[in-house]
Amino acid sequence: MARPSPYGRAMSVTDEYLKNNEEYAKAFSGPLPLPPSKHVAVVACMDARLDVYRVLGLSDGEAHVIRNAGGVVTDDEIRSLAISQRLLGTREIILIHHTDCGMLTFTDDEFKRAIQEETGIKPEWAAESFGDLAEDVRQSLRRIEASPFVTKHESLRGFVFDVATGKLDEVTL
Amino acid sequence: MARPSPYGRAMSVTDEYLKNNEEYAKAFSGPLPLPPSKHVAVVACMDARLDVYRVLGLSDGEAHVIRNAGGVVTDDEIRSLAISQRLLGTREIILIHHTDCGMLTFTDDEFKRAIQEETGIKPEWAAESFGDLAEDVRQSLRRIEASPFVTKHESLRGFVFDVATGKLDEVTL
Repeated sequence: MARPSPYGRAMSVTDEYLKNNEEYAKAFSGPLPLPPSKHVAVVACMDARLDVYRVLGLSDGEAHVIRNAGGVVTDDEIRSLAISQRLLGTREIILIHHTDCGMLTFTDDEFKRAIQEETGIKPEWAAESFGDLAEDVRQSLRRIEASPFVTKHESLRGFVFDVATGKLDEVTL
Repeated sequence: MARPSPYGRAMSVTDEYLKNNEEYAKAFSGPLPLPPSKHVAVVACMDARLDVYRVLGLSDGEAHVIRNAGGVVTDDEIRSLAISQRLLGTREIILIHHTDCGMLTFTDDEFKRAIQEETGIKPEWAAESFGDLAEDVRQSLRRIEASPFVTKHESLRGFVFDVATGKLDEVTL
């Protein structure tokens, strides 16, 4: 199955990170059990400034961490949460959006139009951009509440992470 | 818009994590810029033992981190990667699956059948279970290569994280 990589590059950031991983493995003590020990699932934005383990003080093995552009809830988050709850026993859900989010800076129409103009193909999926942070946290909360497949949680709460202060502010429905 | 939470619980893990966040914010120095400074996007499994920032030695602000059940590539990861590359300038992709993954422990048919028997509704989405780790990393690599919307990367590499040793092992196509 081996074939040469089509990507040429002397020393990539990926290579730097692999060197970091060698150091990480030296001090590693495992393995921990598969099911999250704190029975929590987090859904957060992919933003580079949102180190979910540090922001929440998670230790290894405690919580599932699901992330995407915006921290929005689409079918793939419903899939992940259904697996998390039904097969691995999580019972709390924490949603995290954040200030200064890239999703606030464009519209679905213009993003998909730009892709169509460059590639000739318009994405068949929604880009899930939004204009108001708290409103989109509520939208994500409601999508979970409306799902017939994610029903096992005893707690469901949503927050906005402030990238200037490091604080989480709760958004209520 | 405020309404009382339907979930009652004296002191949840979520509350513990919010206390951790108060400590985190005390030592926080921000804000950093929005675009990832190392121009990297990571796609990894949601597994609780996979602290991506520590495994790769990521610092705040360096890389997007996208995660779901399995670390598989579905439309939502294509959406997130397209936004990451086209709007925020990432140019390398790192995929991470891991040993002892929950996705190896069930089949789509039995998972969806169990949901249907309990709720009366069969999920319209694939659960994305798999039987071979390296093969599924290759599957994810190929889905990205086949996408007309994720085309800006100069590096695309896939790995299996060993939950017993903390090491990343590369999977080649």
